[in-house]
Amino acid sequence: MARIAIVGGTGYTGVELLRLLAAHEAAEVVAITSRAEAGRRVDDLYPNLRGFYDLAFTEPDDKLLAECDVVFFATPHNVAMQSVPGLLAAGARVIDLSADYRVRDAQLWSRWYGEPHTSADLLQQAVYGLPEANRERIRDAQLVACPGCYPTSILLGLKPLLANDLVDSQHLIASAASGASGAGRQAKIDNLLTEVDGSFKAYGVGGHRHLPEIEQELALFAGHPVQLTFVPHLLPMVRGIHATLFATLTDAHRDLQALYEETYADEPFVDVLPAGMFPQTRTVRGANRCQISLQVPQGRDTVVVMSTIDNLVKGASGQAIQNMNIMLGLPETMGLDQVALLP
Amino acid sequence: MARIAIVGGTGYTGVELLRLLAAHEAAEVVAITSRAEAGRRVDDLYPNLRGFYDLAFTEPDDKLLAECDVVFFATPHNVAMQSVPGLLAAGARVIDLSADYRVRDAQLWSRWYGEPHTSADLLQQAVYGLPEANRERIRDAQLVACPGCYPTSILLGLKPLLANDLVDSQHLIASAASGASGAGRQAKIDNLLTEVDGSFKAYGVGGHRHLPEIEQELALFAGHPVQLTFVPHLLPMVRGIHATLFATLTDAHRDLQALYEETYADEPFVDVLPAGMFPQTRTVRGANRCQISLQVPQGRDTVVVMSTIDNLVKGASGQAIQNMNIMLGLPETMGLDQVALLP
Amino acid sequence: MARIAIVGGTGYTGVELLRLLAAHEAAEVVAITSRAEAGRRVDDLYPNLRGFYDLAFTEPDDKLLAECDVVFFATPHNVAMQSVPGLLAAGARVIDLSADYRVRDAQLWSRWYGEPHTSADLLQQAVYGLPEANRERIRDAQLVACPGCYPTSILLGLKPLLANDLVDSQHLIASAASGASGAGRQAKIDNLLTEVDGSFKAYGVGGHRHLPEIEQELALFAGHPVQLTFVPHLLPMVRGIHATLFATLTDAHRDLQALYEETYADEPFVDVLPAGMFPQTRTVRGANRCQISLQVPQGRDTVVVMSTIDNLVKGASGQAIQNMNIMLGLPETMGLDQVALLP
Amino acid sequence: MARIAIVGGTGYTGVELLRLLAAHEAAEVVAITSRAEAGRRVDDLYPNLRGFYDLAFTEPDDKLLAECDVVFFATPHNVAMQSVPGLLAAGARVIDLSADYRVRDAQLWSRWYGEPHTSADLLQQAVYGLPEANRERIRDAQLVACPGCYPTSILLGLKPLLANDLVDSQHLIASAASGASGAGRQAKIDNLLTEVDGSFKAYGVGGHRHLPEIEQELALFAGHPVQLTFVPHLLPMVRGIHATLFATLTDAHRDLQALYEETYADEPFVDVLPAGMFPQTRTVRGANRCQISLQVPQGRDTVVVMSTIDNLVKGASGQAIQNMNIMLGLPETMGLDQVALLP
Repeated sequence: MARIAIVGGTGYTGVELLRLLAAHEAAEVVAITSRAEAGRRVDDLYPNLRGFYDLAFTEPDDKLLAECDVVFFATPHNVAMQSVPGLLAAGARVIDLSADYRVRDAQLWSRWYGEPHTSADLLQQAVYGLPEANRERIRDAQLVACPGCYPTSILLGLKPLLANDLVDSQHLIASAASGASGAGRQAKIDNLLTEVDGSFKAYGVGGHRHLPEIEQELALFAGHPVQLTFVPHLLPMVRGIHATLFATLTDAHRDLQALYEETYADEPFVDVLPAGMFPQTRTVRGANRCQISLQVPQGRDTVVVMSTIDNLVKGASGQAIQNMNIMLGLPETMGLDQVALLP
Repeated sequence: MARIAIVGGTGYTGVELLRLLAAHEAAEVVAITSRAEAGRRVDDLYPNLRGFYDLAFTEPDDKLLAECDVVFFATPHNVAMQSVPGLLAAGARVIDLSADYRVRDAQLWSRWYGEPHTSADLLQQAVYGLPEANRERIRDAQLVACPGCYPTSILLGLKPLLANDLVDSQHLIASAASGASGAGRQAKIDNLLTEVDGSFKAYGVGGHRHLPEIEQELALFAGHPVQLTFVPHLLPMVRGIHATLFATLTDAHRDLQALYEETYADEPFVDVLPAGMFPQTRTVRGANRCQISLQVPQGRDTVVVMSTIDNLVKGASGQAIQNMNIMLGLPETMGLDQVALLP
Repeated sequence: MARIAIVGGTGYTGVELLRLLAAHEAAEVVAITSRAEAGRRVDDLYPNLRGFYDLAFTEPDDKLLAECDVVFFATPHNVAMQSVPGLLAAGARVIDLSADYRVRDAQLWSRWYGEPHTSADLLQQAVYGLPEANRERIRDAQLVACPGCYPTSILLGLKPLLANDLVDSQHLIASAASGASGAGRQAKIDNLLTEVDGSFKAYGVGGHRHLPEIEQELALFAGHPVQLTFVPHLLPMVRGIHATLFATLTDAHRDLQALYEETYADEPFVDVLPAGMFPQTRTVRGANRCQISLQVPQGRDTVVVMSTIDNLVKGASGQAIQNMNIMLGLPETMGLDQVALLP
Repeated sequence: MARIAIVGGTGYTGVELLRLLAAHEAAEVVAITSRAEAGRRVDDLYPNLRGFYDLAFTEPDDKLLAECDVVFFATPHNVAMQSVPGLLAAGARVIDLSADYRVRDAQLWSRWYGEPHTSADLLQQAVYGLPEANRERIRDAQLVACPGCYPTSILLGLKPLLANDLVDSQHLIASAASGASGAGRQAKIDNLLTEVDGSFKAYGVGGHRHLPEIEQELALFAGHPVQLTFVPHLLPMVRGIHATLFATLTDAHRDLQALYEETYADEPFVDVLPAGMFPQTRTVRGANRCQISLQVPQGRDTVVVMSTIDNLVKGASGQAIQNMNIMLGLPETMGLDQVALLP
């Protein structure tokens, strides 16, 4: 059994790691840290875990973390980059679910996150943990930067178009919507049920922090810089991301349905839907899966791609475990075969 | 007091007309028809109306309808066009909330609605009831075709750009989302709470019936045909439409915020938000109001316009009453000064 | 026009007072205070108010408050009791929406609210602002303690039974449920959409702060002390309270439907539904109304009463305005004739 | 591998059986029937099942069903009783999730379900499938009547009190609330999102069809007839039942917390929460688990028990599989170890 530690486990990606790892045959959570909740049993905070874990939150302890096979950081940004250099030096392997190591350009990172990057030398070494793009490099990585939730849905949705040079890469559009769990478990008025329920809005229209990592990875698909207009929206619900992607086709003759099916034929967690079936967030709820479909309305020159994930699973904790499986040489799907909860 | 009749009053636009007209000083509902519920009191079906109406649904009776000052059709498509020719001949004035008279080209209508138009000769006479575009023609109209909910939000959002020739009109994009009341009060599995709640999806991506009326009216703004890619989505909530509109700027130097504020300065029901404030559907819930804001992310050449209405008010029944006020020479805002219900 | 001030206007009862008073013909809000938001326009915080108020939050200023005709306190408990003594001395009339003056026994208040009552001498003078029980005393009151949301629904539901000595008053049961807006607009993790949506739970089962005021007022109906088991629940929605009340009948022969209809025949805001129709929170959403129905299942000796209000209207701000109307000698229904928003 | 058939698999209990059985090591679904959807792939109707089943709905075929090891009926009432006699005669073992065999008295059944019972002779043979009450009899049963969702939560909540004669059994009260999936996947206006969302109501107050089976089983716990006032409510959410149970204590000295913990100490799917922790429906969402807590407010003589299940799991399909495990001699928990999905 691989020994697993989770740093910052009180948030939703933390409890989701615990839910998924409870069913994992080859990994065992031996430590979960939280300064705020140290000493409290995890099943007192999260009663859905009663009977599955006999574990309490502890103060962070780098020495103990370094003895684990894999350390997950389920922390806000700016936390992992304080501890990761030491852990790597001590030989640990780290999967960071936060934004700290996703952007390779430290200056760009600083501009979007509003503070200096204290561990910039590791940015080139970190592997962007999207297995469908970087599987081989993840295998041997010591530090994996797990993608954000919006990026995962958008990158998987646009990859076939950009990798095959089929669209105008300077006018890509992503109109995406997220359930409120994407904002984490933080005491903010904006995220109260009374503020979010029964309503819908765009936010961060001037610039969302996920934009730089999305454009960075899209550029790798395209082989050159791209421009994306990214508008996130907040949904009155808990889980799920739905990205509606628009691009102007430069090649009208390609069979896009076939292209998408071929691209993802061997991917266990990307499901290209049959033509005419559109994804819903609920059909991936709780599952480590991205469902994608596409359409060219009225046979014009704009292609619409719809891409759906559960932001806490394929958009965070499930993807982190997928990365862990690859890093540990385990079957990539181990512990990730949950059927989505519907209705 | 103007005498008002409502045909097909059991749906959500019907009860919303009743809610709004209960507060109208110069109009009185004297008849409301429904074949299915004839004989039943309206406040038995809709207990929120108890104490406000002493009225029961009746069988449709064209003679009685013709004696009213204004007849609202709150019916599914294909109903109004059966009765309207006779009512107009009898001198009635009609406001049709359905789709029957919105598209001026009968063949185009038939292609999208799947049946012949039985009253095509009235299509040229009907006025598209968007006061912000056609106020003068509405004043004397005998037949007003009240716009659909998606069209209202999209048309008001794009008008300033097209009327001033500022964007590529052949690649307009509308990523719009609607609350479930847009689908009406019909017994369909797809609209059950268990199917819609906690989930989000696109639908009608290959072509939604609101597309032809939107492109028709956008073309009038632009002075030439336009092409719009329109993707509607279903929100897990009751009321509200949010349209996120994208267009490529052909003129980068125009002050768009000022343009929008000037365009709508005298419009009582269009509220251009200050720069940096984005609309939410809840801030217009229950109110006859469209709130709009815009942004040019990263100073590139794509403009994003966000436009929000309550689909049952400015997107249907409120707009119908706004049209009625204009037709009757009443103050346009009469009975339409509700503050949105928040939270 | 009566000059109105609102103290602590940033919460949901504050914005609801503003929404309702915007339509009031004889009252004008001249001041609204908030330490946290002083200087900010109210329509910047609450964009649904754009166009209705040209008003900004100000620092509290007792001198200015004392010049108003009525001062509403829309504050958490323990705030009003600091300022009210001074305001009363200066001649102001106060309607307190908080809990500070609802319980006549200062020691009892202190036990439930965990701090000493600093204005205990006013407790006997304060009138409990449930017009359906205390209309005459409210008329001349200088200080009205507006009831809580649970109490309003429960008191109106049980009054006819207790006032007519028809049930075992020592084993009353209230199983009540509230929308999340009852918890106010505070940054607490427990009230996040992600914590509340899609779930249901009881809370405060060991003792909720509304219990003492409910038992106090029920005892006045009964003429002797009563015992109530009160279990509140949190609903995954914004507005509405539904109380399901159970009592053992001691008199099986009384026509309870008739009794309820007679009791509330002249009450403009209490609507006893016809036998067999049950209330829903949505049929009173946004309206100052309590809808009640009752049933004796299987003809046994347990009566079930269902009582529904909008917690922010008849359970708070609407009731406060109803009290204001009575105090100012205005028609009791002035500004309170909104039709509930349905769907 | 046990060969499993599901009759009437298009509803929510059907898809839930498929979700749970996908993870079951010793059972395989070989047939799923539906007249309406015969020929359609199950993963076309339920895209969450893509990749898990290569199966289409078929017309019912009693011969094929009889060859299976276990046949689940996930049908509306009045369907199973047409086919079950033949299947039993052919040697099949049946688990009926509908109401057809839950009430032992055929006349009582007919009174509540409004039609004659066509298979009354099997009522005595059928075992009420609540393993926590009837485990031994289930083991060898040929026909198991799986309890309804409300009954499961109420029976488990009240069993310790009645079995130990601690309360007034003639004045039991159950104020229970269910998510909308309890009403099934049927095209009814009452269950539209627009009718249910953002609202709460009681229903069936005069008498709900689950009452006779609840009183029947409670009487078995008590050893004599009981009287229960049962008021169900509809929650604006998809999954979950929460029963709030009230009873008057006749013995004030018993340690009820200890009693409950002892009663359920060996039950794998009943979790008595620590004193002071109250259950939430979300902490059992998707899990085959009942969480229970209790309280005696203000130390008076009324005990409040809260009991929560997922109506589609422990209230239907999960419980059915638990019964199947017992009948097949498998570990009772096999395939039922899902962690609840939270948030």
